[in-house]
Amino acid sequence: MSEVPTITLRDAPQGFADCPGFRTAATACDIRENGAVRNDLAVISADGPLEAAGVFTKNDICAAPVQLCREQLSAAAGKVAGCVVNSGNANACTGAQGMCDAREMAALTQKALGAEAPVLVCSTGRIGRQLPMPTIRKGIRKASEQVNASAENAVAAADAILTSDTRRKLATVQIKWHGQTFTVAGMAKGAGMIEPNMATMLAFLGTDLEIPASELKPILTHAVEQTFNRISIDGDMSTNDTVLLFANGHSGTRLGAAGSTLYVAFAQAVEQVCAVLADKIVGDGEKITKVIELTVKGAPTAAAAEKVARAIGNSLLVKTSWYGSDPNWGRLVDAAGYARIGLVEEKLDLHYNDTAALLQGVPQDALIPEWRKIVAEKRFRISLNLNLGSAEYRILTTDLSEAYVNFNKSE
Amino acid sequence: MSEVPTITLRDAPQGFADCPGFRTAATACDIRENGAVRNDLAVISADGPLEAAGVFTKNDICAAPVQLCREQLSAAAGKVAGCVVNSGNANACTGAQGMCDAREMAALTQKALGAEAPVLVCSTGRIGRQLPMPTIRKGIRKASEQVNASAENAVAAADAILTSDTRRKLATVQIKWHGQTFTVAGMAKGAGMIEPNMATMLAFLGTDLEIPASELKPILTHAVEQTFNRISIDGDMSTNDTVLLFANGHSGTRLGAAGSTLYVAFAQAVEQVCAVLADKIVGDGEKITKVIELTVKGAPTAAAAEKVARAIGNSLLVKTSWYGSDPNWGRLVDAAGYARIGLVEEKLDLHYNDTAALLQGVPQDALIPEWRKIVAEKRFRISLNLNLGSAEYRILTTDLSEAYVNFNKSE
Repeated sequence: MSEVPTITLRDAPQGFADCPGFRTAATACDIRENGAVRNDLAVISADGPLEAAGVFTKNDICAAPVQLCREQLSAAAGKVAGCVVNSGNANACTGAQGMCDAREMAALTQKALGAEAPVLVCSTGRIGRQLPMPTIRKGIRKASEQVNASAENAVAAADAILTSDTRRKLATVQIKWHGQTFTVAGMAKGAGMIEPNMATMLAFLGTDLEIPASELKPILTHAVEQTFNRISIDGDMSTNDTVLLFANGHSGTRLGAAGSTLYVAFAQAVEQVCAVLADKIVGDGEKITKVIELTVKGAPTAAAAEKVARAIGNSLLVKTSWYGSDPNWGRLVDAAGYARIGLVEEKLDLHYNDTAALLQGVPQDALIPEWRKIVAEKRFRISLNLNLGSAEYRILTTDLSEAYVNFNKSE
Repeated sequence: MSEVPTITLRDAPQGFADCPGFRTAATACDIRENGAVRNDLAVISADGPLEAAGVFTKNDICAAPVQLCREQLSAAAGKVAGCVVNSGNANACTGAQGMCDAREMAALTQKALGAEAPVLVCSTGRIGRQLPMPTIRKGIRKASEQVNASAENAVAAADAILTSDTRRKLATVQIKWHGQTFTVAGMAKGAGMIEPNMATMLAFLGTDLEIPASELKPILTHAVEQTFNRISIDGDMSTNDTVLLFANGHSGTRLGAAGSTLYVAFAQAVEQVCAVLADKIVGDGEKITKVIELTVKGAPTAAAAEKVARAIGNSLLVKTSWYGSDPNWGRLVDAAGYARIGLVEEKLDLHYNDTAALLQGVPQDALIPEWRKIVAEKRFRISLNLNLGSAEYRILTTDLSEAYVNFNKSE
């Protein structure tokens, strides 16, 4: 049993259709109430019962479906029949009526699927409006009747959950080990800039391994921490952010104990799916023109590294200078300084890709033409070494464009 | 001695010329090195010695002139001859050379004024470039020769310190008491959005009362906390932020003990000058179209109220919705929620001016047309009552426009 598993990212992923044992469907309910015909409700289910784990927004204000998911996962010890997801309306800040509607969505889907276990609910879209329940009721019945394992349905489901996203977001990883193939498939929706926050992120992952919910939770939590939480520049989440991981056991193979070869490979696969989805979310941020991989190194603690990274990645003046292809390291160092972790100007090393901008706090002005070339690219790396310790933190961030402001000035 | 002092804000303030005993001058040094002829260096001095106090940026990275000011005020126990200020170059992130240049500016001005006490230095402008010292040396000599008490010079000095400001920022308050008149005059420069940070703010205040530096400090600190610190949405300051208060003793009247009638009136006058200057800074924020007075009430603690207020005032999505005249209370409540002070949706009361948007968490949709009208105004109030306690916090904030992004995309 010493064979090393191979972990491969699939080309042309097809969402939940890539993972045996799942069934999906999508339908159009006009939840945005603008008359446009587009799929805006999806159902994820499986041949049999599912084990599930979730990671949710930490916002004080959390949407009715988030409250319901937490409650159901806890009450059913993670044993669920699937999930119903709608876009176009977040069912957030909707009071008792909103909670009532979320419960009804869950109950209706469970009934329509003929399931014994409860169904989870996720919503994304405008905050503060009640759901158009009559059309949602119809949509749930229709989608639940149509669930199947086809790629067509799985892709339609991935499209149905999108809001201001411009692209479908899918990722599938396969684990090959001792002649068997196990799959982790995922779909996500981003929108907004995913920062400073409030742009709801939803992600759904499924695997055909057999894993109890209690074991899924720590694996998912770790993966989210390493990936999705490193694109949310404030560390702040929206009212609705949700990541769910389902295991359907279709492969008949039990995961095994923590630390075992398969366990490690699975955890790695989940993290890789999350990482690819997170990258796609950043790359499809509202009206962004650039993606920046920012690493803060040499920090006294990981928390200090994170604080500096988020201060830089969240600075309006830094973001606008990236947008303008201006390698304005002064704004960047200033932002690092107001994180107030005790940094020392004379110790700072700053690099754009592999080109030095500051060494021991001294600007390398001879290299300005090179910095300019790098900052004009669609994607580049920035590394800031504080030279105060050995901790580091990496985030994916974006520029800030005029089009973003225009796009968000009203809903 | 029980007469109550009258405290009056002067119409058409003339800066330091309003306060007897001060002398100023300004000159053009082309510190921006773009060939444009505009005043960019100012000198503030007085007939005799000055007592001075300063409040500075808390950024880990602070500019050479800030370090020098701190050092000089401490070494000279607040006894100084005046101040030299330049715009166009912040002398920040300039290493040992920057410190050397700041010291030379101080020494040259002291010599040119023939002063015994040291001279303070303030700089504002681009970060990370060395000062063009040859032209600054000439400018210092010229300005120091020309210092006088005229309104012409005082106004020229107020203009010389501006960067991307579109308007001069002056405020003067007079205290009349027992037939005597005492003055607190101030000038400031804002720029940037003053938030999230990095847009340097400089302010200079002078009074003709006789007050030792040690007594000026707590009065200035309190006034800054109540005013300038409530427009900096992150609570973060730039590398150069500085507020200086000078007392020239020209009136021959000693301030008196803390708590005395004149002391209280003076503290109030300083705070009023700071408040007017802070308001002018926000109102002249880069490419803003709206000013919002945001008050968070009913918080369990003042710190919690501040956290919620800054989360809202700093949210890109909230700011862009204000820009679009969209009363998007959902985004506002979401931002309040991610401050994570434990707020309860069902307790929130939200008002635009005096019109309710939420009462006990329930949207007052019938009033939507009224909210829309208010949010379309150039200036309006938002009050969020958490109904969790009795603490409150008020900040002045702004919208975020496409023009801001365009303006800041390069320097």
